Amino acid sequence: MSSRKLLIVGSGNVAWHLSKALEKSGHQVLAVWSRTLGHASRLASQLYAAQATDSHDLSAFAADIAIVCVPDDGIAPLTLTLSLPKNILLVHTSGATPIQALTNPYTHRLGVLYPLQTFSKSKPVDLKNVPICIEATSAEDEAELERLAGTISDTLAVLSSQDRVWLHVAAVFACNFSNHMYSIAHQLLSKQGIPFEILHPLMRETTQKALQHPPRSVQTGPAARGDAATLDLHTSLLQASPWADLYQQISQSILREISHTSK
Amino acid sequence: MSSRKLLIVGSGNVAWHLSKALEKSGHQVLAVWSRTLGHASRLASQLYAAQATDSHDLSAFAADIAIVCVPDDGIAPLTLTLSLPKNILLVHTSGATPIQALTNPYTHRLGVLYPLQTFSKSKPVDLKNVPICIEATSAEDEAELERLAGTISDTLAVLSSQDRVWLHVAAVFACNFSNHMYSIAHQLLSKQGIPFEILHPLMRETTQKALQHPPRSVQTGPAARGDAATLDLHTSLLQASPWADLYQQISQSILREISHTSK
Repeated sequence: MSSRKLLIVGSGNVAWHLSKALEKSGHQVLAVWSRTLGHASRLASQLYAAQATDSHDLSAFAADIAIVCVPDDGIAPLTLTLSLPKNILLVHTSGATPIQALTNPYTHRLGVLYPLQTFSKSKPVDLKNVPICIEATSAEDEAELERLAGTISDTLAVLSSQDRVWLHVAAVFACNFSNHMYSIAHQLLSKQGIPFEILHPLMRETTQKALQHPPRSVQTGPAARGDAATLDLHTSLLQASPWADLYQQISQSILREISHTSK
Repeated sequence: MSSRKLLIVGSGNVAWHLSKALEKSGHQVLAVWSRTLGHASRLASQLYAAQATDSHDLSAFAADIAIVCVPDDGIAPLTLTLSLPKNILLVHTSGATPIQALTNPYTHRLGVLYPLQTFSKSKPVDLKNVPICIEATSAEDEAELERLAGTISDTLAVLSSQDRVWLHVAAVFACNFSNHMYSIAHQLLSKQGIPFEILHPLMRETTQKALQHPPRSVQTGPAARGDAATLDLHTSLLQASPWADLYQQISQSILREISHTSK
């Protein structure tokens, strides 16, 4: 695909990872906007020839696509106030936000580019393996976004706003919540002075299994085998921790799931 | 280590994996006991020269170590009724069961060999990478079990019964509960017709991160950033599913954890 000229609106983790990956693939960021000029400058300085700005008037930058990477609740109020090049393709990068949150007097060409990954500024992520979910208000712009995203990732999915929000909820369970389970395990072991590393092989195997089989079909543990004595033992042990209720609620959910599965 | 002669009491997943790994390492299983003779025969037929039996009198087998691999609540009542070679080393393989559950009139040499892994009969597991937790009532038998376990695994840990049960609870969170989170994600996506594979890179990255950092320090998602609007959106979306309450409870737990973390 020929090179595209871009505006990056925002200077957080997604803005950093996306803009760097896009420049590496031959596109050019003309400007980085942030409410805080210093934040925009810090990212712009890492890019080829991007200007930093905190002005809401971005109409002078002759860009093809504006990519809004700000926190979800900021998308609608911010985009409403931006002066943009006429008829620019305006996209956001949020999983939980419908495409309609993008409202701007200068353009009706709207889209979404949602990279399905957790980003930390400090840790480089190879976007090649990160699925990017795409939506647009026209078939032409959908194709345009597929071309753009295809230059940085090998996995693209066209999803409606409704499917995207379901995917986002599912990702919260699979990623944020499973990490919280790891975190609780880590804290329980720390308190006993047992190194967390002893769980590493089990964590690897559990995730590996869930990548190869429907996770419900490989569910193990006291709840899955209806082992009431162990459930009681664990619950009473956890009374001294903040997680006794959570242990019971998740165990109940597994028991319900298993009892609904015909074996 | 010189070869040991073994009795295997039980014929479930742990019995299968342990007895095969031990024979591969040069030890010999003299007999496999099961309440159901056919189950004992099925496992014995896979071993070098093991006899199958359902008799509680095992005193004629001149074994060094008897390994009890039956469900947790069966350990105490069963071992009490077994006739064993005098002074044999008698061990169980359970995470949640104290060493004292082993009571037998023929021996006071007691121990535990707890392999920290999820086993399915169908899926071979390389025990080399599976931590084995050891406990014994004497230093000599602890050393004996370290030698035995060291022939099948590279990671050994000597843990008291109390530490072992904490490890077991932690493993339920890290393994069983994180798998349930995957399972819920899988079911949410199935309902929308979105392939689960789209989450695979995120699942891999999440586990990878938790293996390299304290999981609490890499917690992300709407609860971790206190994004009330997304939490409300997800909760209302999930009202049509069995998991709205669970979503809220886990999110609350993350919110509590984050608010207690000084940043």
